[in-house]
Amino acid sequence: LTVLCTLVLVAVTATIIALSPQCLSWWQSSPVYQIYPRSFQDSDQDGVGDLKGIQNRLDHFVYLNVKAIWISPFYKSPMKDFGYDVEDFREIDPIFGTMEDFDNLLSSMHDRGLKLIIDFIPNHTSDKHVWFQRSRNGTEKYKDYYIWKDCESVNGTMTKPPNNWVSVFGNSAWQFDTVRGQCYLHQFLKEQPDLNFRNADVLKDMTDVVRFWLEKGVDGLRMDAVKFILEAEHLRDEPQVNPQQNPENITSHSELYHDYTESQVGLHVILQGWRQVMDEYSTEPGRYRFMVTESYDYEEIGRTMMYYGTSFVQEANFPFNFYLLDLPESLSGRACYDLVKLWMSNMPKGYWPNWVVGNHDNPRIASAVSRKYVNVINMLLLTLPGTPTSYYGEEIGMENIAVSEDQIQDPFGKFDPSENRDPFRSPMQWDSSPNAGFSEANKTWLPVHPEYQTCNVMMQRNDSSSPLALYRTLTALRDSELSLHRGWVCLVWSDADVFAYVRELDGLSTAFLIVLNLGNGSTTDLTAVVPELPREASVRVSTLPGSKKTVSLAAIKTERGEGLVLEYHTRQPIHEVSRFRENCFVSEKACYFSALGILYKNC
Amino acid sequence: LTVLCTLVLVAVTATIIALSPQCLSWWQSSPVYQIYPRSFQDSDQDGVGDLKGIQNRLDHFVYLNVKAIWISPFYKSPMKDFGYDVEDFREIDPIFGTMEDFDNLLSSMHDRGLKLIIDFIPNHTSDKHVWFQRSRNGTEKYKDYYIWKDCESVNGTMTKPPNNWVSVFGNSAWQFDTVRGQCYLHQFLKEQPDLNFRNADVLKDMTDVVRFWLEKGVDGLRMDAVKFILEAEHLRDEPQVNPQQNPENITSHSELYHDYTESQVGLHVILQGWRQVMDEYSTEPGRYRFMVTESYDYEEIGRTMMYYGTSFVQEANFPFNFYLLDLPESLSGRACYDLVKLWMSNMPKGYWPNWVVGNHDNPRIASAVSRKYVNVINMLLLTLPGTPTSYYGEEIGMENIAVSEDQIQDPFGKFDPSENRDPFRSPMQWDSSPNAGFSEANKTWLPVHPEYQTCNVMMQRNDSSSPLALYRTLTALRDSELSLHRGWVCLVWSDADVFAYVRELDGLSTAFLIVLNLGNGSTTDLTAVVPELPREASVRVSTLPGSKKTVSLAAIKTERGEGLVLEYHTRQPIHEVSRFRENCFVSEKACYFSALGILYKNC
Ligand SMILES: [Ca+2]
Ligand SMILES: [Ca+2]
Repeated sequence: LTVLCTLVLVAVTATIIALSPQCLSWWQSSPVYQIYPRSFQDSDQDGVGDLKGIQNRLDHFVYLNVKAIWISPFYKSPMKDFGYDVEDFREIDPIFGTMEDFDNLLSSMHDRGLKLIIDFIPNHTSDKHVWFQRSRNGTEKYKDYYIWKDCESVNGTMTKPPNNWVSVFGNSAWQFDTVRGQCYLHQFLKEQPDLNFRNADVLKDMTDVVRFWLEKGVDGLRMDAVKFILEAEHLRDEPQVNPQQNPENITSHSELYHDYTESQVGLHVILQGWRQVMDEYSTEPGRYRFMVTESYDYEEIGRTMMYYGTSFVQEANFPFNFYLLDLPESLSGRACYDLVKLWMSNMPKGYWPNWVVGNHDNPRIASAVSRKYVNVINMLLLTLPGTPTSYYGEEIGMENIAVSEDQIQDPFGKFDPSENRDPFRSPMQWDSSPNAGFSEANKTWLPVHPEYQTCNVMMQRNDSSSPLALYRTLTALRDSELSLHRGWVCLVWSDADVFAYVRELDGLSTAFLIVLNLGNGSTTDLTAVVPELPREASVRVSTLPGSKKTVSLAAIKTERGEGLVLEYHTRQPIHEVSRFRENCFVSEKACYFSALGILYKNC
Repeated sequence: LTVLCTLVLVAVTATIIALSPQCLSWWQSSPVYQIYPRSFQDSDQDGVGDLKGIQNRLDHFVYLNVKAIWISPFYKSPMKDFGYDVEDFREIDPIFGTMEDFDNLLSSMHDRGLKLIIDFIPNHTSDKHVWFQRSRNGTEKYKDYYIWKDCESVNGTMTKPPNNWVSVFGNSAWQFDTVRGQCYLHQFLKEQPDLNFRNADVLKDMTDVVRFWLEKGVDGLRMDAVKFILEAEHLRDEPQVNPQQNPENITSHSELYHDYTESQVGLHVILQGWRQVMDEYSTEPGRYRFMVTESYDYEEIGRTMMYYGTSFVQEANFPFNFYLLDLPESLSGRACYDLVKLWMSNMPKGYWPNWVVGNHDNPRIASAVSRKYVNVINMLLLTLPGTPTSYYGEEIGMENIAVSEDQIQDPFGKFDPSENRDPFRSPMQWDSSPNAGFSEANKTWLPVHPEYQTCNVMMQRNDSSSPLALYRTLTALRDSELSLHRGWVCLVWSDADVFAYVRELDGLSTAFLIVLNLGNGSTTDLTAVVPELPREASVRVSTLPGSKKTVSLAAIKTERGEGLVLEYHTRQPIHEVSRFRENCFVSEKACYFSALGILYKNC
């Protein structure tokens, strides 16, 4: 009998293992927190943040329940584009510290269970990079490392570029080089010459850079500006958006269609190759290496989705979803619904969604929209299915700073002050001490926001109604509630003011209704639209804590910028209601078997 | 002791199996023979070839040592483009027979060990296809099966097309449809509307067509006109080759750059998906399904190479290599060397080369060059590494026929008589009987070549110095000599007249030197250029049989159009000579271990 029992137990265990879904990987279960390293924490009193500073602040992430940290570039760089112009992909810029600092930071992070995502910037190098120096002086191996072309010049100044291509930052994408006597292509600054990925040696060298950082132990790569990696070899003029415009007057990136400088055939093969390399380093348990791509494709969302790869070859784990960055343009419940649905309905089956509401290239929520909406937008971010990305400071609702024209640091801002990105790169506001606890220097590289004494981490840690408290409550809720971290989402309602969705998981009776007010105060009656919902739900989280305990679904009152996570119990999942089929989505589907208390797949 | 011996034997056997390279697959070991079914054999006296006719001629392939047969389209079709305008992808056109005829043909082929490759035409259907009929009358599911766009029209005639796109056959690629009141896109004839592969249902339906024929048991698919499958969604004007040309006068395909109508991002994903389906049907031993793509990319050879897929996802087994079709333009030893090297040096590592010297879209060798060179070009084709493709009739050196303008059958020829393809589609010349044994009809769809009585299969079977005899000798030689079918090629010499290369395999002392005269009579001294070769070699095959037994490498005399396969023995492989490293290539590398008489890999 003992033998029989043992056999049965083994069989049952094997079945359970076979039916159990994989746990979510770290890049799926934790939000990603973006650090702009110049502005996070200064440790050596020079007024600029650094790696040691980040290490000193690691407890902040433990406090936030955030495990995935992405640090913007810290490589050796002349800082013409604040580190996106890399002089040496294998060295730390002295302003940020040393390689030892990096190694210490990484091991401190791993000790705390934190994962590190770093930037990989394949499109270009700094013009100070040794490859470019060797390329311009004609060293054989490096001759074709960049994109060189004959052009007309007088006294070292280009008089006629090889074609009409324009840099992202404005003006011709070509620059005459006096040493080589030819023009080179730069899709960004002239100090950022584009690498020539048609050259197999360039691809190999850049792949070696990927390997270098994976060997060091970094957990993920955020791949910068990927759509620019390849250009058409024929170098023909790009078509003008307005064919009537005088070709001589074309100076802005938006005046051309970028048919020859973006998203060329062959691009995805390169990215898939890098994913393969990352897979080689992903075999140890818990050591999965994560890949995310940056590409702004605007109305051509199909282009973005291609970075997910195909059913037979993997590419990025996800491409950054930047569509919620459009929220400030016309904030409303309906607009938010549209943006969420845009991603969910275009994302190919089997993939993992993600959401970005801010980064180093976009204004802060509190300024672009209003302080009133900081909480509700964080609630949106943290209750949607998939991986949220938060830009440093958004957890406390930091605002843009004012930067006068003569103080502009950002190279893009220098070209066009209306495009200045300094305002949303100001130092992190930690406490009420001088420089907000960011630095002990006399002067910080950008000024600290003047009102930091009323908006900082320390204050908000002591205030249970603060944005920080809400952020922390929501990240904890994500971790504890299966329906939130791998359940269905059903978009059930939107109007000018309110956007509402349900999160639920097959087999679990606990479900959530999230009601977000992105307009003005209003009362929503969901009983007619979703009669399958119960008549009442309890308030699990509110952006206005303590205001109410239960809510009647016939009259859900929300104020301007208020958000509610309502909890209820049901045996009627909304995603099974045919009316909502087109508005329900699930990734990594799993079901709960309550008798055994386990999840299973193929359900 | 017996036990020990057995164990040792088992271990040795296991090692040998582990080290043995896979045998070449059928699509690698046999030449591909292209049948234009209208012209191969007529079985029902209507003057047009048919499937039963092909079945009656299967012994020809056994005789030729050819195992892979590609038959151009035989689907139900209004024959506006001779079968490339398909009305039903799952039916046989009555002119070619019935589905029963097809099934009989396929099983007869399989009985003889022959493999069947059929055409798959994804880019367009006939305008008579039920999908198009439903699309033009607005049936919901089919509305977007084709590419429709509003356009200006007067009395049912288009007065302004949606953009400047031009059909491959000339004039606007748009056609007004009076039923739907919109314009549709046709990259080929107006009777060939382009399918809309951005519609997932279209992709699924066409994938089901692939499955249909694989289920039937066909061994391979030749995918037609693949680069045209996707177009840019924005439908913007394509750039003019000559920007000064009056846009009103653009009528020819060559007057535009096809940046929006060819090779769009996403194309390879579709093809890779079809390869995946073919893999599903390739698991039984000996039942590998072969995929070859047709795409003319001219100077952009990198585009062609992309059809091989990447190191992590397979696509075509090979894209047709059409570069040797340029041979007639400027026949010389050097030009031939350049074309061979072009492919070999651009083909990514690990892939299998292939060679095409004629097809239904290109003039016959005997006419485009001269009868003088038929043999030497067949020798080139059959001694290069990789898979050769022969167009029917080339094995006997058939010539183009003359077709007067009023007799033109080809739709492209009707648009532009200088592009008429009828001359190289004339009936196969089997024997000296009426209609060359092709048909017992009074009139054949195209005239039989008037000189068929001096150029036909029957005559050449009885003539050991005929093109047919040479072709057969060479296919047999390929089969019997390892160096030829999977060895190295080293391109050792070229001048205005002669092109010479070595075929050798590691571990085998028998090697071959192929010397081809593609110019005028000359004497070549290879002793200075390749002193590693022996001083003498024996003549294994000559296009002028019996003329000599051995040749001194110091003075290899060749006449105009003469070709020699010279055999020699050596311990000094040319591919190990550093001077030749860039001119030596190998695919499916294997080495010979003479003590055991086996091949092994990883060498
Ligand atoms: Ca680039
Ligand atoms: Ca097409």
